[in-house]
Amino acid sequence: MQKLVLVRHGQSQWNLENRFTGWVDSPLTEKGEAEAKAAGERIAQSGLQFDLAYTSYLQRAIRTLWFILEKANQTWIPVEKHWRLNERHYGGLQGLNKQETRDKYGDDQVFQWRRSYATLPPDATGPFQEEQLKDRRYKNIPRDQFPKGEALKQTLERVQPYWEAEMLPHFKKAGDMLVVAHGNSLRALVKLLAGMDEDEITQFEFATGVPLVCDMTEDYKIKSMDWME
Amino acid sequence: MQKLVLVRHGQSQWNLENRFTGWVDSPLTEKGEAEAKAAGERIAQSGLQFDLAYTSYLQRAIRTLWFILEKANQTWIPVEKHWRLNERHYGGLQGLNKQETRDKYGDDQVFQWRRSYATLPPDATGPFQEEQLKDRRYKNIPRDQFPKGEALKQTLERVQPYWEAEMLPHFKKAGDMLVVAHGNSLRALVKLLAGMDEDEITQFEFATGVPLVCDMTEDYKIKSMDWME
Repeated sequence: MQKLVLVRHGQSQWNLENRFTGWVDSPLTEKGEAEAKAAGERIAQSGLQFDLAYTSYLQRAIRTLWFILEKANQTWIPVEKHWRLNERHYGGLQGLNKQETRDKYGDDQVFQWRRSYATLPPDATGPFQEEQLKDRRYKNIPRDQFPKGEALKQTLERVQPYWEAEMLPHFKKAGDMLVVAHGNSLRALVKLLAGMDEDEITQFEFATGVPLVCDMTEDYKIKSMDWME
Repeated sequence: MQKLVLVRHGQSQWNLENRFTGWVDSPLTEKGEAEAKAAGERIAQSGLQFDLAYTSYLQRAIRTLWFILEKANQTWIPVEKHWRLNERHYGGLQGLNKQETRDKYGDDQVFQWRRSYATLPPDATGPFQEEQLKDRRYKNIPRDQFPKGEALKQTLERVQPYWEAEMLPHFKKAGDMLVVAHGNSLRALVKLLAGMDEDEITQFEFATGVPLVCDMTEDYKIKSMDWME
């Protein structure tokens, strides 16, 4: 039975500062690095050996993956990175402090933005969006498809084609696979592969740096899941 | 004009212990990590932006690359790893202390093994070779082609097909390219691309963690080289 292991990146600087991050490339904190190393040590102890790994274009996920591979002594495995595994694009909320946003817009509105399946955040404007539009790592995203703000629904819609066209075909030819990404791009994968409905998936929480080990069925759905704690 | 930047990994544990390393997967020392970070800072200051990177299957090269990409804020670029960029396979010398080897075989013989273009080391036997033959990262190397010991000549002969079939075609479609590898796999590339003869290349030294910036001609030969110090 093949295993798919999903890991949310360790704490980032903007997690620590309680700011909406989205596609802003916030680095890992020291705590985040420690969480990543601990995840790698757990994986090393488990004896899991991966044939390939996927991650996003954001350093908090990439470096979490690197720490895991180092600790698990599997630095040499192939790693593919893609923007489609990036965190949900938080639109006009990127950079804002979560408490200040609640004070300004009210708890209900912020709860909706954070937790509803399809409620879009305000459109992105300003320097973060300008920087992302100019960032050479995103130059191949057609400008009319460049995210301005996503809920989980839109995140899933851009994760799914990558899963189907790239990740799944490679997984089918391999053994166990590791994905290190973000709360919402991982939720998108879990929704797709475990068949959760919108309520279930919006209540499903990924802790930072805790591997979720998924046993897969023969048709590549999630059969069972277990936190490696 | 495209640039090819070549970096030898930082100091490894076995560099420090003065042992012949070859394909043994010796980790970076703290000094080696610092050298790797310093290389990354130099590259960051230079403003170089890579479109892709290549490295070997050995952690001292992979982790040097990762430190460089982190410091240069280019963690997201595509990275390909391959055993053909591994260090020269040191055969039966792997694991031996260099001074003890000189005491046993004499300075002249050891100098020949270390520096001649084509003099093979003794064939590999024993636990290091057994471990490498069993190592899943090398499972796709046909057993009758598995290195038992190489001089620079044999290293070049297995680097060249990878350069021609994989690296060069991708380089032609990209901008600047980074390669983080080993003293002898990098010598092989320099010999191939700068047209050095056997004497010149065996006297050409890569310091650990000092990027060599190569300006390429239109037909992908090295036009000029400059150490980034």
